[in-house]
Amino acid sequence: MDRYVEHSMWRRLMVNAGDEPTGSPEPCVVGVDFGTLSGRAVVVRVRDGEELASAEHVYPHAVLDRELPDGTRLPPDWALQVPSDYVDVLRHAVPAALAAAGVRPDQVIGIGTDFTACTVLPVLADGTPLCELPEYTARPHAYVKLWRHHAAQGQADRINVLAAEREEPWLERYGGKISSEWEFAKALQVLEEDSEIYQRMERWVEAADWIVWRLCGTYVRNACTAGYKGQYQDGAYPSRDYLEALAPGFAGFVTEKLAHPIGALGARAGHLTAEAAAWTGLPEGIAVCVGNVDAHVTAPAAGAVEPGQMVAIMGTSTCHVMSSDQRGVVPGMCGVVEGGILPGLWGYEAGQSGVGDIFGWFVRTGFPAEYAEKAAAAGQTAHEYLTALAAGQQVGEHGLVALDWHSGNRSVLVDHELSGVVVGLTLSTRPEDVYRALLEATAFGTRTIIEAFEASGVPVGELIVAGGLTKNALLMQIYADVTRRPLSIIGSAQGPALGAAMHAAVAAGAHPDIQAAARAMGKADRGVYQPDPERAAAYDRLYAEYRLLHDYFGRGTNDVMHRLRALRAEASA
Amino acid sequence: MDRYVEHSMWRRLMVNAGDEPTGSPEPCVVGVDFGTLSGRAVVVRVRDGEELASAEHVYPHAVLDRELPDGTRLPPDWALQVPSDYVDVLRHAVPAALAAAGVRPDQVIGIGTDFTACTVLPVLADGTPLCELPEYTARPHAYVKLWRHHAAQGQADRINVLAAEREEPWLERYGGKISSEWEFAKALQVLEEDSEIYQRMERWVEAADWIVWRLCGTYVRNACTAGYKGQYQDGAYPSRDYLEALAPGFAGFVTEKLAHPIGALGARAGHLTAEAAAWTGLPEGIAVCVGNVDAHVTAPAAGAVEPGQMVAIMGTSTCHVMSSDQRGVVPGMCGVVEGGILPGLWGYEAGQSGVGDIFGWFVRTGFPAEYAEKAAAAGQTAHEYLTALAAGQQVGEHGLVALDWHSGNRSVLVDHELSGVVVGLTLSTRPEDVYRALLEATAFGTRTIIEAFEASGVPVGELIVAGGLTKNALLMQIYADVTRRPLSIIGSAQGPALGAAMHAAVAAGAHPDIQAAARAMGKADRGVYQPDPERAAAYDRLYAEYRLLHDYFGRGTNDVMHRLRALRAEASA
Repeated sequence: MDRYVEHSMWRRLMVNAGDEPTGSPEPCVVGVDFGTLSGRAVVVRVRDGEELASAEHVYPHAVLDRELPDGTRLPPDWALQVPSDYVDVLRHAVPAALAAAGVRPDQVIGIGTDFTACTVLPVLADGTPLCELPEYTARPHAYVKLWRHHAAQGQADRINVLAAEREEPWLERYGGKISSEWEFAKALQVLEEDSEIYQRMERWVEAADWIVWRLCGTYVRNACTAGYKGQYQDGAYPSRDYLEALAPGFAGFVTEKLAHPIGALGARAGHLTAEAAAWTGLPEGIAVCVGNVDAHVTAPAAGAVEPGQMVAIMGTSTCHVMSSDQRGVVPGMCGVVEGGILPGLWGYEAGQSGVGDIFGWFVRTGFPAEYAEKAAAAGQTAHEYLTALAAGQQVGEHGLVALDWHSGNRSVLVDHELSGVVVGLTLSTRPEDVYRALLEATAFGTRTIIEAFEASGVPVGELIVAGGLTKNALLMQIYADVTRRPLSIIGSAQGPALGAAMHAAVAAGAHPDIQAAARAMGKADRGVYQPDPERAAAYDRLYAEYRLLHDYFGRGTNDVMHRLRALRAEASA
Repeated sequence: MDRYVEHSMWRRLMVNAGDEPTGSPEPCVVGVDFGTLSGRAVVVRVRDGEELASAEHVYPHAVLDRELPDGTRLPPDWALQVPSDYVDVLRHAVPAALAAAGVRPDQVIGIGTDFTACTVLPVLADGTPLCELPEYTARPHAYVKLWRHHAAQGQADRINVLAAEREEPWLERYGGKISSEWEFAKALQVLEEDSEIYQRMERWVEAADWIVWRLCGTYVRNACTAGYKGQYQDGAYPSRDYLEALAPGFAGFVTEKLAHPIGALGARAGHLTAEAAAWTGLPEGIAVCVGNVDAHVTAPAAGAVEPGQMVAIMGTSTCHVMSSDQRGVVPGMCGVVEGGILPGLWGYEAGQSGVGDIFGWFVRTGFPAEYAEKAAAAGQTAHEYLTALAAGQQVGEHGLVALDWHSGNRSVLVDHELSGVVVGLTLSTRPEDVYRALLEATAFGTRTIIEAFEASGVPVGELIVAGGLTKNALLMQIYADVTRRPLSIIGSAQGPALGAAMHAAVAAGAHPDIQAAARAMGKADRGVYQPDPERAAAYDRLYAEYRLLHDYFGRGTNDVMHRLRALRAEASA
């Protein structure tokens, strides 16, 4: 409910902005961001990216991780969604945002979308999801597999082992390992666990493309997910030979279910259908942009369209995206895809699997009653209270160094079985000390990623931060000091939706390309946090400790974390 | 106040025991345990060690760690006491215990004492403490230096460096390092910081011996502190040559201030003076036993008089004492002293500097409000609540391993600048998981000590536990499983005072030696906790991880803890 209150307060401000006496009504675009639990539509002015209003619609079925809607139980590590929930966002959030913005439908010249990824579903040739066929409503594999469906690890492991053995050329483009979250691992799980569903599906489609298909009646595969999640590199998917060797019956997967014409990011996928116009209240026939991914559209939303501008989207986890004119082999990155962020440049993605999640865990499990009382008395959240206490410290004063692997390590170690460490605890260590050490550990994680890029000949210039954690000024300053880089902050609270809208503006022809759209509509406050040389020097010393422990625990010198996890699994069995 | 209530309830039970119709009144002894904050007297029946009553007297001046009684400020790391507080214990606690026991004074045939150590003070030739001379009441160095006075680290470092350079023969008897808490370091600090006090003092005397001197009018140095705290080995102290090389003016320290006839443990130091009889209400002329140390007297109180019976006194820290017929060089032990625990055997001491302190720290800083509420609702302390949750786990289920060095490491690394570590944290790690990992870490610390003894040819058979932590059954079971040894538990809540009383019985001739007294009066419940083979096997795997980390962080492979401490000191400066 809070969110709605916030929106309507903000709407009042924004309506005024939209009502500026600028002569004739100005062209607008709609961006729709499909997140994990809800979709959010924003109405944006094409000229300057002004966000006129937004509205959110929560998915009625949220995430299915225990059972299907009919009560069918799901095994551990599953995470499914219901595709009609996405259509509901078009039916509710778009009209609501439009109404709140106070713009006339005919001002809207295009619609763009972004999605979580890899979120993928089996459909018929006309786009009908198999889970909507009455005979398959009780079949888990007929549903959307959400990005965080983690039950295909066995398949991913085999994909990686075989690819390494065969020296498949695409493997290095993914830092040496592909993920269980991606298209091939999830599809192989369908084949091996429910071959009827696998045989029946005519397309294995990213939700990012499926929603565009719903909007314009045309299936266009977007260049971003094809590359990052479908291993499409240099014009080809993994070969038939390789797939044949991987699993019986999988040889035809690419040709029969996956391959499809690919659209560049910002290109027009088609025109809004009459049906979708009725859902959204938008004019039939306006431009519908090719699909895209939440993190990747955020880059131009933050004005990052030059090579070497790295955007870190910091929330529960962090995703790093950056375009470059250099193609490098960066060990441990998530992927490098030509045109994967901006047409004409190499798009890089890297990530940290736990960031805000770790701070949240600490507050949940390590915030004593005495602190909770004081925070409540001061009207502060636990995070605010701990941050205020931690902010008064000098670098190194807590005597701690931590490894931020409580949720595993995505980049650069690509090992989800690693775990967190705290070194330096004494009888005088306080909660704010550990909290600060955890904030710092995530900054060291980002610096490790930056250094991996630079060591591979891919320069990183500026760091631009987006996402919910930008509101923690101490955290931002720590990142500036640790990375020795000025930190810019995105100028929007809804970067993905803004980015989707910008792509719509390009698809509608209002800006010639994403770069131009970013210059006109992108928003970042530049150099908000500047590195302090003295703190940076002290952090160099702590970072050296972090790296020493990083390599010791993360690169096999002491494989204790894997052994502890194995022991835990045995003990829990 | 709680303590007094407890005592008087207990007294009612004990008086009945004392009133058993055994014909003529039975001989009793009094044991007085001088702790850090109070002294406790217990009246014990000689025949069977029955504890008839006890009374406690809290030191009026407690610990002087900020200022002297006159307001003179003290530097950091100082910890002083006032000697008249000890006499007050004789004047108040002894008569109170006697009255509570309902025994007639003429039933008491001897008095014995134990003390913290190394707790040491400068006195005149007649035993007058320098701090009692009017001209020195404002001079910090004139007071008792409590065992945990830690301001002589610089002196200790120099003592160790020089001893290692000169290959002094006594050094290996202390595991390779002597402590800043001991007699030489503290005396050298007096010389270097207040030479007038140093010149004026005629004896540098352990409080353990000073209190006996007060009781019987005779100064007898006890074999225990002479050996463990005064480096008296094979009939000699550190040589005049060595002392001369150590510091100008220190050459004569042993001959002029320290050396004195040494009494065996359990021997009679003298007879109770008329003055002390008036203080205590005991008969003039009864036997007064040679002084002793709290941990060391606890061994016979727990019935441990055979070679290889290791007694662990577990409280905020743990002290391990054991007699053996083998003389080994055990790296990292606190000391080995001939007759240091029992006449005729080699007495070994080792220790863990943080045990209960670490559990207390965790509860203070890592016990969330939600848990506090549930514990309160269940009428449990935080420790009870966490223990109950942790007790339900299988070994290894928490996925963690910790290093128990939050207060440094005494044995076997002898490095107080080490610090604590937790490895294996995930977003699902709960407070009870970390709590259990800390309990286990201290058990691994004890196993490390046991293995150091055995690797040096000093067998450890049984483990007998005394002290406040014996009440945690989960902790005790973990120690049994981790050490693969049956665990016996001392049968007294006041082991030191009982041990002092037993020594008094020997000094009075009621038992021929400590062994005989221990057989008659010592108390332990044998084999209360038995190792479970399956859990022990799982712990072997966790212990292997502990040892790997122990050596990595503790033996210089990665000196991160020292560097973090240095950075902390710089940052705090």
